[in-house]
Amino acid sequence: MQQYLLIPGPTPLPEEVLRAGARQMINHRDPEFGQLLAETLAALRRVFMTRHPIIPFAASGTGGLEAALVNLCSPGDEVVAVCAGAFGERFAAIAEAFGLRVRRLEVPWGQAVDPEAVRAALRATPQARVLLVTHNETSTGVRQDLRAIAEAARGHDALLLADAVSSLGAVELRADAWGLDVVITGSQKALMAPPGLALVSVSDRAQAAMRTARLPRFYWAFDRMLAELGDTEAYTPFTPAIGTLYALREGLRLVEAEGLEARWARHRRTARAVRAGLRALGLRIVPDEPVASETVTAVWLPDGVAAGALLERLRVEHGVTLSGGQGQFRGRIVRFGHLGWVPDEAVLAGLQALETVLPQVGGPAARGAVAAAREVLAGAPA
Amino acid sequence: MQQYLLIPGPTPLPEEVLRAGARQMINHRDPEFGQLLAETLAALRRVFMTRHPIIPFAASGTGGLEAALVNLCSPGDEVVAVCAGAFGERFAAIAEAFGLRVRRLEVPWGQAVDPEAVRAALRATPQARVLLVTHNETSTGVRQDLRAIAEAARGHDALLLADAVSSLGAVELRADAWGLDVVITGSQKALMAPPGLALVSVSDRAQAAMRTARLPRFYWAFDRMLAELGDTEAYTPFTPAIGTLYALREGLRLVEAEGLEARWARHRRTARAVRAGLRALGLRIVPDEPVASETVTAVWLPDGVAAGALLERLRVEHGVTLSGGQGQFRGRIVRFGHLGWVPDEAVLAGLQALETVLPQVGGPAARGAVAAAREVLAGAPA
Repeated sequence: MQQYLLIPGPTPLPEEVLRAGARQMINHRDPEFGQLLAETLAALRRVFMTRHPIIPFAASGTGGLEAALVNLCSPGDEVVAVCAGAFGERFAAIAEAFGLRVRRLEVPWGQAVDPEAVRAALRATPQARVLLVTHNETSTGVRQDLRAIAEAARGHDALLLADAVSSLGAVELRADAWGLDVVITGSQKALMAPPGLALVSVSDRAQAAMRTARLPRFYWAFDRMLAELGDTEAYTPFTPAIGTLYALREGLRLVEAEGLEARWARHRRTARAVRAGLRALGLRIVPDEPVASETVTAVWLPDGVAAGALLERLRVEHGVTLSGGQGQFRGRIVRFGHLGWVPDEAVLAGLQALETVLPQVGGPAARGAVAAAREVLAGAPA
Repeated sequence: MQQYLLIPGPTPLPEEVLRAGARQMINHRDPEFGQLLAETLAALRRVFMTRHPIIPFAASGTGGLEAALVNLCSPGDEVVAVCAGAFGERFAAIAEAFGLRVRRLEVPWGQAVDPEAVRAALRATPQARVLLVTHNETSTGVRQDLRAIAEAARGHDALLLADAVSSLGAVELRADAWGLDVVITGSQKALMAPPGLALVSVSDRAQAAMRTARLPRFYWAFDRMLAELGDTEAYTPFTPAIGTLYALREGLRLVEAEGLEARWARHRRTARAVRAGLRALGLRIVPDEPVASETVTAVWLPDGVAAGALLERLRVEHGVTLSGGQGQFRGRIVRFGHLGWVPDEAVLAGLQALETVLPQVGGPAARGAVAAAREVLAGAPA
């Protein structure tokens, strides 16, 4: 059965990426590797829209979040954390695990944060060392207005650390133009590579903060990494994930061949199509339209439908894999991922399967999901 | 040109492993993944020879060393570290970075530690929380007698943490029978998978220590991992390196098809063949024969031979990749790796290329490396 992996990551890999990732191993101290990594980092700088270095860790995205904190903070430092879902909570929890004093800016799940509230929280925390923001809150399907948040944070000394794991490469993000000090993403989302690499950009201001920050670190130490990252050859102090880097270089080639702005437009259009299809089935989108994510759509489960039964039937009988909810949304929502390599056909297959299965598990028997989505997909780019 | 990657890791990957690693992504929360990880961990337990859990981190082996320390120690704890090369030094340096008080048991590079010296160091450090040992010191080509070291440590409360990154799966190691509390390895050495996974076994005693250890941790926290590792389905709290796990499962299948004892014997024989070939060229092995590693052979550079010129010529003109020295051995030795998937043909090609190139870069003009190695390979297993 054809499989449709429609979750907010890991995302399906194009054939070219799978093939590139299956190349034979090389010596990670030889120029062939040095060039592979340098090329990959150069492409990443274009996609992050930064002239600053990007550090590649063999780790999941969560490792990148931890790396950012332990390199920039000292014990007892104050932190302002925007918490609008499970991933914002995770960023804050990492900070607390390292003995930082976290002031949570709580936002009801499913809503976007008001940039003015960020400004106020920073004003109330003049000593804050860092501001933590999740660009795209994968657990609620809300994309925050990171640009406006960065503007609200301007003038405060806090460094802006942006978790862009499920946004970068699919959604507009301009690290330097917006003044983001650290941007963290993973290889397995919009960049269309397997999981296993955390990628972390570090501004000049962040590099200066690193020099005085005293949290203990070894594996995550930025300075040890930065010392080996040249422009024409780049190496890492510890064995890099060579196969995943091969795949990532190819994923980035595909990203740049499509073009960043074209990619952002495609993700906007696909997201609109998914929302139109889901609404045609009588489902209610969790966030309001203007803040709905371009990479993952969350819908409320209809009364009487069990998430487990719905997801299992979709997977087993239709080869369609969606995600359930996390944290306070567990059992209450379903998430439809559409980031990275998302052919229209996959989105339509997912909607068709939902239309078939929903009435079988006690949900509404509505029709027209595919037609509604097709209409959007046929229209002009958003 | 046919390439021969003869370094102490990353090691060349068999075709089956490359193919397995190129499978399409799946949902890391679905049973298909849960079974992949559970099967992989069960095979790892057989290869580690332990009934205790093994924790898979998306990280390099160094990440596994850090994980072991931060889960088992509290600030200011005393540590005894056997330092006999660059990797022993690294383990000690990680401990120091986290504020532990490290008592180094210094061993001249190229020599093995005397287990009685370990016993004495522990006796002199009654409060030591952990003992750090590098099973196979990749930087010097010395394999420590881990079993005797573990016996010498018995009766002391210190937990034994063994860095087995370049030994496990190639060299005898019996985690439970020898009483090793934590054994750390990586995917990219004898297990014949790409780099990107650190694998860490945790004894009951180590799990008890974990409950009171106070060093800060989040990404590396054992307890969060252990909570999701079941016997028939296993998951990870953060996105796992799915492609590398596919490859590792296949690498482990090949390891078990060959058989552990047969594998240890093969590595012993290959190492003897390499040493015989290198000696035929007039090269001097760094360690004494009884402690020479079964996975990597270090030889002194002959007078007047520059490491860079030798290694580059081997690589560019013969497709043979060897390694140079690290730390105090930089520019003084060459290392010939022979672990994991090492066809006799690759070893012979490496020796033949060395025989050709050595006189071209100012070294001795000797003959007979291949014949000497062949003789060993044709003989009975060691």
